[in-house]
Amino acid sequence: MDGKNAVKVKSQHGASYENSSNTITQLATNTNKQEPITFVLVHGAWADASFWDNAAAELRKQGHTVHAPEYAGHGSLYNPAVKHEDIVKSIVDYITSKKLTNIALVGHSFGGTVIQKVAEQVPDRINRLVFFDAFVPLDGQSLSDQLPTELQKVFGQLAQQSGNGTIKLPFAVFRDGFVNTASESIAKSIYNKAKPEPGAPLVQKLDLKKFYSLNIPKSYLFLTSDIVTPQGDKYGFHPAQSSHLGQFRLILGEGDHMTTAFEQPGYLAQKLYEAARK
Amino acid sequence: MDGKNAVKVKSQHGASYENSSNTITQLATNTNKQEPITFVLVHGAWADASFWDNAAAELRKQGHTVHAPEYAGHGSLYNPAVKHEDIVKSIVDYITSKKLTNIALVGHSFGGTVIQKVAEQVPDRINRLVFFDAFVPLDGQSLSDQLPTELQKVFGQLAQQSGNGTIKLPFAVFRDGFVNTASESIAKSIYNKAKPEPGAPLVQKLDLKKFYSLNIPKSYLFLTSDIVTPQGDKYGFHPAQSSHLGQFRLILGEGDHMTTAFEQPGYLAQKLYEAARK
Amino acid sequence: MDGKNAVKVKSQHGASYENSSNTITQLATNTNKQEPITFVLVHGAWADASFWDNAAAELRKQGHTVHAPEYAGHGSLYNPAVKHEDIVKSIVDYITSKKLTNIALVGHSFGGTVIQKVAEQVPDRINRLVFFDAFVPLDGQSLSDQLPTELQKVFGQLAQQSGNGTIKLPFAVFRDGFVNTASESIAKSIYNKAKPEPGAPLVQKLDLKKFYSLNIPKSYLFLTSDIVTPQGDKYGFHPAQSSHLGQFRLILGEGDHMTTAFEQPGYLAQKLYEAARK
Repeated sequence: MDGKNAVKVKSQHGASYENSSNTITQLATNTNKQEPITFVLVHGAWADASFWDNAAAELRKQGHTVHAPEYAGHGSLYNPAVKHEDIVKSIVDYITSKKLTNIALVGHSFGGTVIQKVAEQVPDRINRLVFFDAFVPLDGQSLSDQLPTELQKVFGQLAQQSGNGTIKLPFAVFRDGFVNTASESIAKSIYNKAKPEPGAPLVQKLDLKKFYSLNIPKSYLFLTSDIVTPQGDKYGFHPAQSSHLGQFRLILGEGDHMTTAFEQPGYLAQKLYEAARK
Repeated sequence: MDGKNAVKVKSQHGASYENSSNTITQLATNTNKQEPITFVLVHGAWADASFWDNAAAELRKQGHTVHAPEYAGHGSLYNPAVKHEDIVKSIVDYITSKKLTNIALVGHSFGGTVIQKVAEQVPDRINRLVFFDAFVPLDGQSLSDQLPTELQKVFGQLAQQSGNGTIKLPFAVFRDGFVNTASESIAKSIYNKAKPEPGAPLVQKLDLKKFYSLNIPKSYLFLTSDIVTPQGDKYGFHPAQSSHLGQFRLILGEGDHMTTAFEQPGYLAQKLYEAARK
Repeated sequence: MDGKNAVKVKSQHGASYENSSNTITQLATNTNKQEPITFVLVHGAWADASFWDNAAAELRKQGHTVHAPEYAGHGSLYNPAVKHEDIVKSIVDYITSKKLTNIALVGHSFGGTVIQKVAEQVPDRINRLVFFDAFVPLDGQSLSDQLPTELQKVFGQLAQQSGNGTIKLPFAVFRDGFVNTASESIAKSIYNKAKPEPGAPLVQKLDLKKFYSLNIPKSYLFLTSDIVTPQGDKYGFHPAQSSHLGQFRLILGEGDHMTTAFEQPGYLAQKLYEAARK
């Protein structure tokens, strides 16, 4: 450990940081134990609440309380005609019925748009919002508005082709775009579990005036190989989507959009903790 | 291993992903063994085929078949007057004479422009194109067109000064731009092996209409300390050059433009596999 | 070690790189010992010279000579009315009085603007300039000019509120912006040591014509989680500030703006060496 050697360092420079190295090093040792946090985890599209199973188990091992509620239209509540407000209601109802407070509210991908609207309704129950490779529409925008026009068109065509407004991604698109760092067999396994995603919530324009007036602290966790949106200043999850938040805590990690939650849940749990802690 | 713990996780959320964690974890264990791939590796400028020696040896250890043919104008075929089409012919002739099929065709740096043109001629022999810190000109462009104007001018002046159209980089430029993470002695060693690069292929405008109509899957491997081109949205290998590919699989790694192939061939081989596999 | 296996690789490709793999690998082994360097370390704002204590100790362990002089207005020389030229004079006087030559001159954050001006006065004493998550104003600009307008305004307001022109950052801003990867207790510990920063040097427009005419080699060390400036092409330390240098050696590392110097000094020392060596 680098930190340990720091104890022996004698400062040559007057009082200001004089004992700070020692103190800080001791603090580092003491704080290996994580402060317990109440997490509410909101999954994204082409997923259901079991997306969080592995990461939630790792967080619980560290002493955290973890809620990963299913929401309308997904998983056991599957419904192609679900609307964005139904999804938000699912999470708000879960939080209020369980009387949860001091929450770290985490949204992955599409879940970013959900926690924006949840925060508008129960702001006092939330300690920090964590956007994890998540969309952060500006006021009046939809998730779809965050994407390049060509991608918006592809999604629109897929929704029309399905006959019920849902979008099933071709495997080649999912494999290289959502699970690019996975082996082929794991990519297929994740793909085969994904139900066609209800399309309407992805194109709904969201009134986010209140969200952008809230003073809740925010973090953005970006896994650097995530290429669901084209990387770079214009469309990248970070810095394009993240920059909509104004001031936020940046936590970077390695991984792509979906593989990490399944294959490296301990690593993801650590990053979620770093994003969520005070 | 994070993945192992996943086996014990019990889903609380209905059927959809129910057993997926277990399945995926078992798959992860089973797939430590790499699926054998036939690689054809195409080196870049200021290099010859021996650039790949170390990485090829590592790939072969994993059971892969690796071809790293020399091409016109370089190494043992050194010729200051070589043209881009001569180089492309070298690779095409190699592939067809050896009747190679189901290839992962990898181009490093300038080699990106070569595999674009090779792909036009033998598309049915290629499973996937892997651009590794590579130039990806748009239709009608040259490699040189991908660079800032000042850099284009420097290259032009160096080509003129040499008297035979070749470009010898000053050591200071090579050291900080091509092998920035290396020690000085390794930097010098790599530099001293580099012959002056034939300049014509770098400025030839390429007809790439057919390339941009092909449906071959593509990957982009970017080593994040590579600063041969200025990093960022306008000139960076990723996302600027990579974005020319449209949909592609992104694989990120640590390293610079040339050091990694010599100093961390096992790491590079792993990244090439991740980029090349199905 | 990947490198070791390289020794066994037999080249199949003629003479050019023939023995280079062996040579390079042997060099790698021989160069684990670092070439001794004379470092002069210039800290940034909201810090004093003890910022470098831990990293300096690690560099000295590797055989380097390290100077981390306090400069006007900071630490034991605290003075709210200090001007940029006073700070520059502190460092120039230190270097000339100690007759230091062949220096690697490192500037962190605000220290970037200091080493620019120091380099103008003692260029012949400097082997290499290392900008570490540092500001690099263009000729005629101030540090403040490198920031988005809103951030400039906040700094201006804070300077006015203090009554003496100093700027004290609110903890929430410091915690998520300067020490985003730290635990809360370490964040507080670092924060509590920081005196209000004299504001004038941050807004002084600097004549940097001579700096931009100098031919001293330059490196930029960027820790990728640093979000003191908004990341991306427009305001990011890298590539926005770094690009002002023209040609430079890029060294990337993990870390944020201030935590790494306290918590991972061995890692930081290694990165400083990679940036500073020939």
